[in-house]
Amino acid sequence: MIRTESLPTSEGVLAAAQSIAAILPPTPLLPIEIGAVRCHAKAESLQPIGAFKIRGAWWALSHVEGKDVVAVSSGNHAQGIAWAARKLGKRAVIVMPRDAPRVKLDNTRALGAEIVLYDRPGEDRDEVAARVIAQRGGTLVHAFGDTRVIEGQGSAGCEIAAQLGRSPSRIVTCCGGGGLAAGLALACPEAAIDIVEPEGWDMVGQAIARGEIVHAGADPPATICDALQPTATRPVNLQVLMNRAAPGVTVTDDEVRAAQLWAFAHLRLVLEPGGAAALAAALAGKVALDEGTVIMLTGGNADPDRFARMLAG
Amino acid sequence: MIRTESLPTSEGVLAAAQSIAAILPPTPLLPIEIGAVRCHAKAESLQPIGAFKIRGAWWALSHVEGKDVVAVSSGNHAQGIAWAARKLGKRAVIVMPRDAPRVKLDNTRALGAEIVLYDRPGEDRDEVAARVIAQRGGTLVHAFGDTRVIEGQGSAGCEIAAQLGRSPSRIVTCCGGGGLAAGLALACPEAAIDIVEPEGWDMVGQAIARGEIVHAGADPPATICDALQPTATRPVNLQVLMNRAAPGVTVTDDEVRAAQLWAFAHLRLVLEPGGAAALAAALAGKVALDEGTVIMLTGGNADPDRFARMLAG
Repeated sequence: MIRTESLPTSEGVLAAAQSIAAILPPTPLLPIEIGAVRCHAKAESLQPIGAFKIRGAWWALSHVEGKDVVAVSSGNHAQGIAWAARKLGKRAVIVMPRDAPRVKLDNTRALGAEIVLYDRPGEDRDEVAARVIAQRGGTLVHAFGDTRVIEGQGSAGCEIAAQLGRSPSRIVTCCGGGGLAAGLALACPEAAIDIVEPEGWDMVGQAIARGEIVHAGADPPATICDALQPTATRPVNLQVLMNRAAPGVTVTDDEVRAAQLWAFAHLRLVLEPGGAAALAAALAGKVALDEGTVIMLTGGNADPDRFARMLAG
Repeated sequence: MIRTESLPTSEGVLAAAQSIAAILPPTPLLPIEIGAVRCHAKAESLQPIGAFKIRGAWWALSHVEGKDVVAVSSGNHAQGIAWAARKLGKRAVIVMPRDAPRVKLDNTRALGAEIVLYDRPGEDRDEVAARVIAQRGGTLVHAFGDTRVIEGQGSAGCEIAAQLGRSPSRIVTCCGGGGLAAGLALACPEAAIDIVEPEGWDMVGQAIARGEIVHAGADPPATICDALQPTATRPVNLQVLMNRAAPGVTVTDDEVRAAQLWAFAHLRLVLEPGGAAALAAALAGKVALDEGTVIMLTGGNADPDRFARMLAG
C-alpha cells in the first residue's frame, strides 16, 4: 500500500513539532565559532537514535493506521522507523543495504525491527521493498519523499527558531534525498537553505538547477557518506525546494573527514560522515556564514573502526 | 596570595547557578538506558571547554579582584580558568603537567593563557605554583579545594534538578579532588552522592572512610584517567563530603575504556577517560541505579590518537 497525500505545509510542520515536543526533548543548539564567525550548530546526532530521522519517522508512523510498516534505508531512517514502530506498537520491516555500517544494522535490530538486506550496486532497493509489501502487506514509509516525513524533519527548524528566539538567517544542511532540507524550508520560510551533498551525489542540487528530477548515473563515485546516496530526489521534495534552495555545494571525502575531526576536538561530538557534511562545507569556506547561521549536525552513527582510522589520519 | 574563605553553602551554589545561567546554556540531560534501568546522563562534556570545570572557574574568577590568576591543572580546570579569565579581562598562568593530553595544552593556549609545565612524577605542582606567585604575584584558584570552585561546580546539580523537575535520587560522579562531588552534595541535599575514582587513586574515598586526608603513595599506579590524579583531597572538600557521600567505588582502565566505547556508540559523545569514569561504574554494575539516577559525563577532551586506539580495541 502506498499512501497518496497532500503536499507538506508549514502548518503540518508546526503540528509535527508539537507532537514531537511531547515525546522528545529538543536537541542542543550549540554556539560554535568558525573562522571569526560565531554561529550555531544543531546537534541532531544527540537524538535517541543518533539522527534527525526519528522526527519524520515518528510523525509519519503516527498517521499510519495498520500495524505493519515497511521502509528502505541505509540506516538512520531505519532506526527512526524501528524506534517509532516500537513506541506505537507496530511491526517494522526495513530494507537495508548489505554494506550499511554495522552499527546501524545492529541498532535497527536492537530496536526490534526485522531487516531485509539487499546489495547496493546490483539490486533496486525500491523493488525489494515492493516485493516485501506484495508478500506480506504493510505501509511503505519513504525515507524522504513523503509528506509526513518531510513535515516531521521540519520540526527541527521550529526548535531552532524557538532556541534562537528568532528565525535563523541561513540553515546549512546535508542533503540526501531532500527530506530534511524541504522540512526546514517549510519550518523557516525566512531562512536561506544551503544544501550540501557529497561530490558526485548532488542529485538534489542538479534537480534544483535543472528544474527536474535527476537520476544517479550507473557508476556513481564512492563516498564515505553512506547516508547521502539517494538514487534521485522525489517530486514532493523538488516541489518544495525549487524556489527555496540554491543548487547548493558539494563536499569531498577529505573535507568530510576534516569536519568529523573538528567536531571531535571542538564539540566533543561523534559525527558520522553524512552527519558532518554541512559542517564540512562551512569549514571549507563553501557557504556564507553569519551570526544567524545554523549548521545541521544530522547524525552520529559512526562505525568505530572507520572513525578510528579517520582520527588516526 | 591565597584567599581565605568561608565554607561553601547551598545558598552559594544557588547564587553560582544563577550567575552561570546568564552566560552558559544548560548542558543536556540525556535519557539513557543501562541494563533495564532508564535514568539520565548529564553531558558536561558539551560545555564550551568540554568539561564542567568552566562552572567553578567562572564563579571563582568572578570573585577575584586582581588582574592575575594562577592555577594548577591537568587540563580541564586550566581551560576553565583560561576561558573565564579571557571573558573577565584577566591574565591567567596555568601550571600543567608535561604529560597532559596535547589537546588540553593546545586548547588552554588557544584560550590565551600562559602555560608553565612541570614533570608529574618529580616536581610538586603546588610548589611550582607558589614559585610563580612569588615571582609575579596573582591569586591562586585551586582546582577543587576552593569554596567558590565547589559552589560553581555545584551549579550542575541545580540544572539537573530543574531539568528533571525534581531532585535526583542519586548522582554518580567521577571524583578527582572532590570539587564537583562536594558541589553536587550541596546542590542536591536529598540525593545520594556516589563517587567514582580510578583504581589506586581513591584518595577521596579513603579520606571519607578514615575521616582524614589521605595522601597518594610515592608510586601510585598508572591510570588512563589523567584528570583524576589528585595527590590528596582538601579539608574543605572532605568536610562537605564526610556525611554526604559513601566511600565510593573504583574503576579499572578497561572499565573506563568500555564506557568510552559505550558513549561513542549509544550517546554519540566523545568522552575522555576521566569523563567516562562514572559511566564506567554504572555499566560495570558497581553502583545502584534507579529512575532518579543521574550519571555525570564530566569531560570530553580526549586525545585523538588515544581515542582511536580505544576504538580499535
